[in-house]
Amino acid sequence: MRACDLAEPYLSVSKDADASEAVRLLVEHALPGLLVVDTAGRPYAIVPACDVVGALVPRYVQEDPVLAGVMDEPHADHLFRALAGKKLSDCLPVGKPFLPTAAPDRTAMGIAELMVHTRSPLIAVVEGPAEGPVRLLGVVTAAHLLERLLQA
Amino acid sequence: MRACDLAEPYLSVSKDADASEAVRLLVEHALPGLLVVDTAGRPYAIVPACDVVGALVPRYVQEDPVLAGVMDEPHADHLFRALAGKKLSDCLPVGKPFLPTAAPDRTAMGIAELMVHTRSPLIAVVEGPAEGPVRLLGVVTAAHLLERLLQA
Repeated sequence: MRACDLAEPYLSVSKDADASEAVRLLVEHALPGLLVVDTAGRPYAIVPACDVVGALVPRYVQEDPVLAGVMDEPHADHLFRALAGKKLSDCLPVGKPFLPTAAPDRTAMGIAELMVHTRSPLIAVVEGPAEGPVRLLGVVTAAHLLERLLQA
Repeated sequence: MRACDLAEPYLSVSKDADASEAVRLLVEHALPGLLVVDTAGRPYAIVPACDVVGALVPRYVQEDPVLAGVMDEPHADHLFRALAGKKLSDCLPVGKPFLPTAAPDRTAMGIAELMVHTRSPLIAVVEGPAEGPVRLLGVVTAAHLLERLLQA
């Protein structure tokens, strides 16, 4: 099994999408993370579910977790307000987006190693130059990789 | 919303279970990770899906990822043999098990912060002393937390 055999279609969301809508997509489809694409439909970022949660946690709390403990319940319940009116791309970390990718000929072991190394439950399978525009062939999730290995 | 309101029942697996069966459970129920319990049914470890994949990757590949690229396809396809005859506990990292927990009165913000900090898509909600036997009230997954916050 190679990455091109393991890649499956996966719901994607534009980096210009409304951030709340992106979260809704993740929840409704029980996705392990978001696959974010640019305006040309090319893979732009992967956001594991715990990092989607991270987009709701104010920076001052991430820097000093003790603050989460002293914040009252009504305030904590309105975490989602942090996303109001924001594009998904506004909520992604600044800098080069996190985008673990595998070439089509990568083996199952290679994908597994990449998942462990990046701690990402999904890997985008792409073809194209290492630096430059790439084409998305599909996605391998941890659950799908494990399923295929169980069958092998 | 407090952890005790957010906690939901979650499938658990004994640390003495067959490792392959534990993987099958994760795949069949599309779980974001495994909740491992001890022989008394108390929470013992949480294994995010990418760490379940990690149990299949030999240590020498994790230490030198280049090796994954030179391993041939038939060998890579038999990653699961690594689990044959092993108990789940044999596949967990040596040392204190990874077990992110929240007390019942932790707020949604506190749980969100813990998910980001630990990079775990699930958090066990427990009651009992900080050091000592605890009782499992349920689990909060990233998807469930996001769903509840969307509704709030």
